[in-house]
Amino acid sequence: MSKPLILITNDDGYQASGIQALASAVASFAEVYVVAPDGPRSGTACAITCTTPVSISPIPPQSQASVLCPQVKWYSCSGTPVDCVKLALEQILPRRPDLLLSGINHGDNASISAHYSGTIGAVFEGCMKEIPSVGISLYLQRGQRYEDFPVGSDTLIALSRLCQRMVKEGLPKDVCLNINLPTAHIFRGWQVCRQARGLWSAEWVSATHPFGQQAFWLTGTFTDLEPEALDTDFSALRAGYCSIVPLHVDLTAHEAIDKIQRIIDKV
Amino acid sequence: MSKPLILITNDDGYQASGIQALASAVASFAEVYVVAPDGPRSGTACAITCTTPVSISPIPPQSQASVLCPQVKWYSCSGTPVDCVKLALEQILPRRPDLLLSGINHGDNASISAHYSGTIGAVFEGCMKEIPSVGISLYLQRGQRYEDFPVGSDTLIALSRLCQRMVKEGLPKDVCLNINLPTAHIFRGWQVCRQARGLWSAEWVSATHPFGQQAFWLTGTFTDLEPEALDTDFSALRAGYCSIVPLHVDLTAHEAIDKIQRIIDKV
Repeated sequence: MSKPLILITNDDGYQASGIQALASAVASFAEVYVVAPDGPRSGTACAITCTTPVSISPIPPQSQASVLCPQVKWYSCSGTPVDCVKLALEQILPRRPDLLLSGINHGDNASISAHYSGTIGAVFEGCMKEIPSVGISLYLQRGQRYEDFPVGSDTLIALSRLCQRMVKEGLPKDVCLNINLPTAHIFRGWQVCRQARGLWSAEWVSATHPFGQQAFWLTGTFTDLEPEALDTDFSALRAGYCSIVPLHVDLTAHEAIDKIQRIIDKV
Repeated sequence: MSKPLILITNDDGYQASGIQALASAVASFAEVYVVAPDGPRSGTACAITCTTPVSISPIPPQSQASVLCPQVKWYSCSGTPVDCVKLALEQILPRRPDLLLSGINHGDNASISAHYSGTIGAVFEGCMKEIPSVGISLYLQRGQRYEDFPVGSDTLIALSRLCQRMVKEGLPKDVCLNINLPTAHIFRGWQVCRQARGLWSAEWVSATHPFGQQAFWLTGTFTDLEPEALDTDFSALRAGYCSIVPLHVDLTAHEAIDKIQRIIDKV
């Protein structure tokens, strides 16, 4: 039987250690294509490139990524993570992939951060194309620095096992997964949960250009609005578990339809 | 009693006729601030500007937008629609707005196109900040061209009435609205509905740079996967109604949690 085909992308660019660790972790059991941005695309959500052409290049065999995982086919792309998925499917892959992975992102995409994440944007794109799609991000505690992603760590081994299961079972139609890891080293287990309610605030820091114009850097403080809940992604991460939130392509707030109808009836 | 405060943004830029029509339509009953991109930002979804500073400028009084709606406060922003909302809330508005409007977009954002839309990205951002938020887009039939947005049309009058109701009633917590108009002229009524399942395909056209490198333009064909359904945004639009889909910030596929748990149990 031929190996399953896995497409990998991310929003940190193909040079990121997270995507290289992920590609290494699944290359043992799958044929792997990486089609990833040519540099950082954090915060690009489901953005697509509408106004300029997008290019793709094979990554040379002497680049760090190719040397680390020579059995993986590496491509870089000038567009967004969603562009990478769309291009891979139509222009690069030899057939439909059995699984799409996005990440491992440097920084978490739990709670409402999933809305802004290019990592998760790519996952939604895969899901809209009816491919089992999983985003993986590494949570960093306050003060913690970006870690390396140790090849052979318990977490990466568990992740590889999870991916094998996904290839076998698939995912429900129009559903994809948003996984956050509390650490790249220790693996305490998976916890299937829901997205925590959250709030970003104090988001801008003023910056003055040397010529005098004012501008603003985006930053911000995140607040978990449900710190007591035990069934959210953040509660899982705080307890040291890997959170798995199923997301759906259907954005409709079905439970609100009747309420909105009553408001509209009064217009 | 003081007038309600409305924040307006879009993803086509402040020069677009859609945003100018929208600002005119609500300026009669509200104090209006427009904080919109300085040019087109179609397809930017919930993207945020992470790596460069973002600037804001008041639009000069002699610009077309200011001349058309002199009672509106006009600002342009170098960032994305989501940046516009974040900056308006923290740096520009005198107080929290009673309503956020995004649009009127030139082109529909029905079905899965909502995922890619900068118009809807801004609406999600307003909703995440607990402001009643509504996105409005104009559907274009195949072969139809971008229309003007006739000030004083039945549709714009109905829209203004709906906005007044939204100011009064608000929206359920964590729920925002995605409105699509079938035409800017005739108003047949509102239809509260759900997002249609859809598929974009044949998305790339090859382009060759004069120096010989290959690149790809993003294009594509949209297929409504539920053409027989009577409760979707596309069915409403086809019947000539304005579609209203409530969207929620919580992306969790709650109905899939048990199923995912059973898959994870086998890992």
